[in-house]
Amino acid sequence: MLRRRCVEKCILAPYFPPTEPLKFKIAHRVFGASSIVKFLQDLPESHRADAVSSMVYEANARIRDPVYGCAGLICQLQKQVNELQEQLAEAQAEIFNLKFQQANMIALISMGMEKSQQNMLQQTYENFENNANLEHDNVGSLWQPDWI
Amino acid sequence: MLRRRCVEKCILAPYFPPTEPLKFKIAHRVFGASSIVKFLQDLPESHRADAVSSMVYEANARIRDPVYGCAGLICQLQKQVNELQEQLAEAQAEIFNLKFQQANMIALISMGMEKSQQNMLQQTYENFENNANLEHDNVGSLWQPDWI
Repeated sequence: MLRRRCVEKCILAPYFPPTEPLKFKIAHRVFGASSIVKFLQDLPESHRADAVSSMVYEANARIRDPVYGCAGLICQLQKQVNELQEQLAEAQAEIFNLKFQQANMIALISMGMEKSQQNMLQQTYENFENNANLEHDNVGSLWQPDWI
Repeated sequence: MLRRRCVEKCILAPYFPPTEPLKFKIAHRVFGASSIVKFLQDLPESHRADAVSSMVYEANARIRDPVYGCAGLICQLQKQVNELQEQLAEAQAEIFNLKFQQANMIALISMGMEKSQQNMLQQTYENFENNANLEHDNVGSLWQPDWI
């Protein structure tokens, strides 16, 4: 119905083809055809297709949600961004703590390994010393003369 | 200028006070006064203030960015949401890995502590045994009769 009033060389024609009447109907209902024409006239031709797409998108959002329209979507997305930023900050803090704990554990394990090596050395030394003492005692008794 | 045409009991009057002429000018430029009137007529009175606020917000966005308007902001926010979701997924994967590594380290430390306790017990037992042997040898020599 609205397309019938389209004049020759109408600025809207390339962006609102007769095959998509709903597209024009929605955009016209929200913005009004004269506003769309004014907006397109102020833009270079290379930007007009994008401008029409964004206006049709906004008009659809206004039809779906007559109270909040696109602003409602922006509000929801902004809320989602804030929540994700909070979750990311919490996750990064957890990573920091886990890495700190990991560094402490690595230090603990290294200390444990060093101590274990020291204990092994100490034990080896003590065993050697004990054996040496035992052998010395045995040698002593072996060499002990009978008359003592 | 536009305010002068406002009739008595105009549906727009409560939401576009004469003290804020720019608010009406911008909304009128983008949506057209007749579209705003139609939208408000279709809404219950309790929602009209929010609807006007969102339309003024959208109109400002269209003036600032005539090509993309609110749709451009939605696109940016959607991109930000996607990036944050990716970063959060990466952070959660890192937390999972760090917790897995931590569990392995705790097991390693526990094993080390058990082994250390076993070593200590072993060492204590060995020391006790060696001392007992030495004492037995000494006792043996003490009780060793002179004639042997």
